[in-house]
Amino acid sequence: MKARAAVAVEAGKPLEIVEVDLEGPKAGEVLVEVKATGICHTDAFTLSGGDPEGIFPSVLGHEGAGVVVEIGPGVKGLKPGDHVIPLYTPECRECEYCLNPKTNLCQAIRSTQGQGLMPDGTSRFSLNGKKLFHYMGCSTFSNYTVMPEIALAKIRSDAPFDKVCYIGCGVTTGIGAVINTAKVEPGSNVVVFGLGGIGLNVVQGARMVGANMIVGVDLNPARKELATRFGMTHFVNPKEVQGDLVAHLVELTGGGADYSFECIGNVNTMRQALECAHKGWGESIIIGVAGAGQEISTRPFQLVTGRSWRGTAFGGARGRTDVPKIVDWYMDGKINIDDLITHTMPLEQINHGFDLMHEGKSIRSVVVY
Amino acid sequence: MKARAAVAVEAGKPLEIVEVDLEGPKAGEVLVEVKATGICHTDAFTLSGGDPEGIFPSVLGHEGAGVVVEIGPGVKGLKPGDHVIPLYTPECRECEYCLNPKTNLCQAIRSTQGQGLMPDGTSRFSLNGKKLFHYMGCSTFSNYTVMPEIALAKIRSDAPFDKVCYIGCGVTTGIGAVINTAKVEPGSNVVVFGLGGIGLNVVQGARMVGANMIVGVDLNPARKELATRFGMTHFVNPKEVQGDLVAHLVELTGGGADYSFECIGNVNTMRQALECAHKGWGESIIIGVAGAGQEISTRPFQLVTGRSWRGTAFGGARGRTDVPKIVDWYMDGKINIDDLITHTMPLEQINHGFDLMHEGKSIRSVVVY
Repeated sequence: MKARAAVAVEAGKPLEIVEVDLEGPKAGEVLVEVKATGICHTDAFTLSGGDPEGIFPSVLGHEGAGVVVEIGPGVKGLKPGDHVIPLYTPECRECEYCLNPKTNLCQAIRSTQGQGLMPDGTSRFSLNGKKLFHYMGCSTFSNYTVMPEIALAKIRSDAPFDKVCYIGCGVTTGIGAVINTAKVEPGSNVVVFGLGGIGLNVVQGARMVGANMIVGVDLNPARKELATRFGMTHFVNPKEVQGDLVAHLVELTGGGADYSFECIGNVNTMRQALECAHKGWGESIIIGVAGAGQEISTRPFQLVTGRSWRGTAFGGARGRTDVPKIVDWYMDGKINIDDLITHTMPLEQINHGFDLMHEGKSIRSVVVY
Repeated sequence: MKARAAVAVEAGKPLEIVEVDLEGPKAGEVLVEVKATGICHTDAFTLSGGDPEGIFPSVLGHEGAGVVVEIGPGVKGLKPGDHVIPLYTPECRECEYCLNPKTNLCQAIRSTQGQGLMPDGTSRFSLNGKKLFHYMGCSTFSNYTVMPEIALAKIRSDAPFDKVCYIGCGVTTGIGAVINTAKVEPGSNVVVFGLGGIGLNVVQGARMVGANMIVGVDLNPARKELATRFGMTHFVNPKEVQGDLVAHLVELTGGGADYSFECIGNVNTMRQALECAHKGWGESIIIGVAGAGQEISTRPFQLVTGRSWRGTAFGGARGRTDVPKIVDWYMDGKINIDDLITHTMPLEQINHGFDLMHEGKSIRSVVVY
């Protein structure tokens, strides 16, 4: 069949909107009509060429929502008409990782996914007879895509695609880091570095679980108003701090953060996030993705005196299990997504969406098919 | 009164065995007759001058056992004749740290202890009218010492001083890191870097809680036999590994360590310990103390893919509560201390004890008064 897609032809070039060929679903696979997709920094990172695992030409996009159109042989849990959110971290419920309650990093299809291929080692996308690679197992920058059943979360049918698509990455990553990875307790003091799409979701996650002080750290003063609406109690602009930022944050929180979150991807702020954590028990969670080859450092004394340094991917969420719950939370008004989606646009303007992100003008742009 | 002590006159010089003056206990303090004391790397680190917080002249030693001789006003929990183990990490049971179940780092007397003084800001030790500093709040290289009540664990009276003194630091640090900090579960795979006094206690702690594979890593092949007796199941000598040590350990453990422990104090092995931890859930615990100014590094990807980096001091133990239990475990034969105490000597030979440690000939030397 034919699909309309934004193709990443090569690193550093704008996406090209073209008609591509899409093969139907094979065993265990599902054809999905993508209704909406967010544009995430990770897509931009890969498109820039900075991602050492980036493969071209490919169909990017990993933050979508849509409807099942057709199922392949053996698919038991989904049927045409079901509403779904694609999962770049699948949940097979059978591998060593899925069976260990300490992790969400299902490894069932990791190697082929990393190669831009479906689990059988082939691609469903092509352009003029030439193979196009899948991306993060999702490829939501196409109005139709094929996905393994284990990488689709079935959600309620009354949820708006143009909002809940964001749960496919940013919302779940931020809120999940709070509730699954850090397990922030009510009354905790929290420091959030970076008040972009992830950081704002950390903020609202912390509010949802009853955090006490929620300190946001960002160089952009325009983020103060929005973050406050999401639950931030204190704003710190490092440019306005006299002296050492870490010492300032430790003083502000009365000894340090019970939990700190790095949502930028900068190895220097990762160190600051660790070191502003409370002696004895503070935990710092890395969410942001650093550039290739960059390293984090600290004195081991920081850890020996009781801080811990951790990380999270997809918010520690098991997608098929947890994503439908987060959709419910949105529909019940427990979390706010609407105010984070600052721009919507048709596929033809997707490159403009990337521009808005690079210019810091958007929190999230969503392409609506 | 007079006491017989090994005095650290200045950095880098041998200890001098002299008669010192000791004032009696003030309010909340206790006079202890020290019956035995271990010689620990931390004493050597301070004596070397490498410890930026080292103060001279002082009475070193922090791994002791003894008997209460006299109590000062207000002391309620101890009486003359009680057997005790001095605690360099006290347990006041009242401060913000003691009341937080996530930490053992009681801060009640931290500032004066760091200054080599009793909680009232003065010293009890002097030599020829000149003040001598306390060390780690213990100063067990003297046959009598004065300590705050909150820094003494009361233990059973049938436990041999020359063995249980080791519980005052090394034993508790190693076993506690396993049971309190890492909370190693039965069936876990464990990797231990460094099979000295701490590492061997990590090994027997891991055995006690039912670990599956217990891999010891040490450059000294002589440690293999002893560590095996303590529960090590696999020995890895990095000199004999072809290729990358981390890759070798990941393969040996079938994917990485569930828990790894660094018991050396080397920032390079700290990194290896983290990176040999299992993707998704592996935790690495730093126990060793690195040199001043040294830093640990890794790629944040190691954390984002589910490893966590932590540290521990005094094995996460709350001394007054936990040390008596570990004494019981020793008396019940659940843990082996006897084979770790390779040398005993009178105070006059204490400098020889340091030599044995530096030469790697001892696991633990104990001074018996």
